[in-house]
Amino acid sequence: MAEQGKEIAASALDAVRSQHPLVHCITNYVTVNDCANALLALDASPIMSDEAADVDDITSICNALVLNIGTLNEATIAGMRAAADRASTLDHPIVLDPVGAGASKLRTKTASQLLDRYGVTILRGNMSEIKALAGTAASTRGVDVNPADVTTDDNLAESAAFARARARQAQVVVAITGAIDVVADANHAFAVRNGSALQGRITGAGCMLSALTGAFAASADTPLQAALGAVVSMGVAGELAASRMQEGDGNGSFRTYLLDALFNLSNAQLHSFARVEEVL
Amino acid sequence: MAEQGKEIAASALDAVRSQHPLVHCITNYVTVNDCANALLALDASPIMSDEAADVDDITSICNALVLNIGTLNEATIAGMRAAADRASTLDHPIVLDPVGAGASKLRTKTASQLLDRYGVTILRGNMSEIKALAGTAASTRGVDVNPADVTTDDNLAESAAFARARARQAQVVVAITGAIDVVADANHAFAVRNGSALQGRITGAGCMLSALTGAFAASADTPLQAALGAVVSMGVAGELAASRMQEGDGNGSFRTYLLDALFNLSNAQLHSFARVEEVL
Amino acid sequence: MAEQGKEIAASALDAVRSQHPLVHCITNYVTVNDCANALLALDASPIMSDEAADVDDITSICNALVLNIGTLNEATIAGMRAAADRASTLDHPIVLDPVGAGASKLRTKTASQLLDRYGVTILRGNMSEIKALAGTAASTRGVDVNPADVTTDDNLAESAAFARARARQAQVVVAITGAIDVVADANHAFAVRNGSALQGRITGAGCMLSALTGAFAASADTPLQAALGAVVSMGVAGELAASRMQEGDGNGSFRTYLLDALFNLSNAQLHSFARVEEVL
Repeated sequence: MAEQGKEIAASALDAVRSQHPLVHCITNYVTVNDCANALLALDASPIMSDEAADVDDITSICNALVLNIGTLNEATIAGMRAAADRASTLDHPIVLDPVGAGASKLRTKTASQLLDRYGVTILRGNMSEIKALAGTAASTRGVDVNPADVTTDDNLAESAAFARARARQAQVVVAITGAIDVVADANHAFAVRNGSALQGRITGAGCMLSALTGAFAASADTPLQAALGAVVSMGVAGELAASRMQEGDGNGSFRTYLLDALFNLSNAQLHSFARVEEVL
Repeated sequence: MAEQGKEIAASALDAVRSQHPLVHCITNYVTVNDCANALLALDASPIMSDEAADVDDITSICNALVLNIGTLNEATIAGMRAAADRASTLDHPIVLDPVGAGASKLRTKTASQLLDRYGVTILRGNMSEIKALAGTAASTRGVDVNPADVTTDDNLAESAAFARARARQAQVVVAITGAIDVVADANHAFAVRNGSALQGRITGAGCMLSALTGAFAASADTPLQAALGAVVSMGVAGELAASRMQEGDGNGSFRTYLLDALFNLSNAQLHSFARVEEVL
Repeated sequence: MAEQGKEIAASALDAVRSQHPLVHCITNYVTVNDCANALLALDASPIMSDEAADVDDITSICNALVLNIGTLNEATIAGMRAAADRASTLDHPIVLDPVGAGASKLRTKTASQLLDRYGVTILRGNMSEIKALAGTAASTRGVDVNPADVTTDDNLAESAAFARARARQAQVVVAITGAIDVVADANHAFAVRNGSALQGRITGAGCMLSALTGAFAASADTPLQAALGAVVSMGVAGELAASRMQEGDGNGSFRTYLLDALFNLSNAQLHSFARVEEVL
C-alpha cells in the first residue's frame, strides 16, 4: 500500500509535467504570486481572474478552477460563484480552499455555499477549517489550525474516519493537511507523513498546495490520485527545501527553496521520499 | 539611556516571540506577502481581511490591527473603518501607516480621519507623511520622503520636538522612520540609528515595519516600547541582511536576507547592534 | 545598426538611473510586488494606485503611467480610465500591457478602448495579445502566447512588418516580446535576441518589463528608444540571471537573480551582451 501511494503520487506528477494544465485561480492577494510560481514550477500555467464579467471566458479555456477564500470580498465572491457555475457546467475540476473558515461568518458561509451549490471536486484545508464546514469545530485560530484539531498518531484513525465521512457527505475528495496529512474519498483514506515544520513559517504553503491541486486535478485519472499527488509533492518539496537551509537562512530563503524544490521535483524523488500509507 | 533603549527593544522582541500575537492587517496588495512573512519570521501570525462584512469577526479574534493605506480603495476604506471601530471597542492596539499621505487628497483625508476618529495607538510613517497629517508638509514625493523632510544630525532635536508634539496632540506614539528614526510619545523621543540604505531599494520595508509594529504593540508593555522594539528590530535586521550581500546580489537577494534576518533575530543581536539614544 | 541598438539601450538605461522617474502603475495583484522591486532595481520609484478617486492626484505627480490588465475588475477599469485621461492631458507617457487580451471579451474590449481613447505611448505584450487587439488573432492560451503566433527566424520579417503597421495604425510604439522580441514604431522595427527561457517559468517577467518600460518612457528621448532600452535591459538581465543558476536552483532562485541582475545592470553590460538588429 505504501508502494501504491508512492506510485500514484509519482504518476500524477508526471501527468502534470506532460500535460501543462492551465489553472484558473481566484485566490487571495497575499500569496497569489507564490501560487502562480508554484504552478509554473510544475510546468503548469496559472491564470488569475476574479471579476464576474471576466471569469466566464477565462474559466472556459482552463483545465481546472481553484477557489481560495483567503481575502474574500463581495466582488470576488460574485466572481467565484460565476466561475464555479461555469466550471461545473463544463465539468472542470474545482478545488476549494476554505482559508479561515470558522474564523468569520462570511468565510464559513461563503465556503459552505460554494461546497453545497457547485460541483467541488477536492476540498483542501486544515482540520479546523474542514470541521468548521462540517459544523463540528469549536473555533479556528485565524488561518491557523486550532491545536485541539491537530492530527497525531493517537487520533489518526479518527481523523481518517472523519475525512472519509466528510468525503461521502459532501461528495468530494478531502485533503486535510497538517503535521500528518489525511487525504480521503468516501472509501479510502491515506496518511501522508511528508513536509517540514518550516512550511508553517511562510505564508502560502497551503495556498500553493491548493493551486497545485488544481493542476493535479486537471491531469490525474481520479480526484483521489490528484489530491494525493499534490499533497505528497508539496510535502516532499518541503523536505527538500528544508534540507538546503544553511546558517543565516530563514523563512525568506525557505520560500525560495520551496519553489526551487517544486521546480526540480521528479518522479524519482517522490519514489524515494514519499511516506504514504492507507489508514483503514 | 542607550542601554535602556537596547533593553526595551530586546525585551519587546522576546515578548513577540513568546506570545505569538495574531495580527489583523488591512494592507496594500503590493507588499502584503512580505508583511505576512515578516510577521511569521518573528513567530507572530498574520491574518489579512479587508471586506467590511468580514473584518468585525476577524479583528475580534486578533491581538492587534494594522491599517496601511498604500493601495486604498472605497471598499477597503470601509473595511478599515469597520475594523478600527471594532478594535477600538475591544481596546486592541491599532497601528496606522499613512502610505503616501500628502501625495493625494484621498490618502491624506482617509489617514487623517482614521487618526482622528479611532483609537490609533501607533502612527508609523516617513516624515513627509507624518507632516502631511499634521497639515505642515509642502509635499511628498509619492510614497518616498521629500528630501527637505529628512531627519539629520543637524535637525534631530527639531524632529524629536515635532514628534513629541504630534504624539501629544494626536494621543499616539509616533514612529518616524528614515536614515535616523525618531520614536516618541508625548514626553520622550528616541533616535534610532540602525538600518541599511538597501531598505530603500526594496518595496515594503516600511510596510513590514508597520506590520511588525502591530505584533509588538500586542505584546509589549507600552506603545512606546512596542514602537521602539519594532523600529530597532527592523533596523538591526536591515544591517544584518546588508552584511550578507555578495557580488552579484541586488535587491532581490536583499529582500530574502531581510526576512531571514528577522527570522533569526535575537535578543543578543539587539543588545549588540541597537543604536538608540533619547533626544532631549 | 547593431552598434546603434546597443548604444540606444545603454543610453536609455543611464537615463533611467540618473533621472529616478516616479512611475504610476495600475497593475495586476499577481506580480505587483515584482514590478515595484524591478523599478527600484533600476533606481526608479514605483507608486501603485488604482482607485478612481485617488489616481488623478497620484498620476499628476508621476512621470509615467503603466496600465496592466492582468487582474481587471470594474473598479480598476474605472481607475485606469481616469488615470489615462489625466496622464494624456499632462502629456505623460502611457504604457499599456494587454495581459490576456484575446482570452476574454472583457480584456480585449478594455485594452482596445484604452488604446483607442487615450494617448497610449507604448503597447507591450506577446504576439497573441497584440494580434487580438488588432482583431487578427484566432485565440490566446490564457496569458501565454499561442504557439502559432511565435516569432521565429522564418517569420521575423513578417512580424516586423506587422509591428510597424500596428505602430502606424495605433500611433504607438509596439514591443512584442517572445523568444525573439520585436520593437517597432511606424518606420523602424528592431529584433532583440536576448533573454532566457527561464523568464517563461516565473510569473511577472512580462509585467516587470512593462513597468520598466514606463520608467524608460519617462527618461528616454523617444518612445522607440525607451521600448528598446527596456526590452534589451530585461533580456540581458534574464541572461545574467540564468548564468547564476546552480544545482538545486529553480524558478524561486531565478526570480531573485532576475531582480539582482536588474539591480546591477550597467551600461557596459548592455554594450557587451545586447543583441539588437534592425529588421528591414
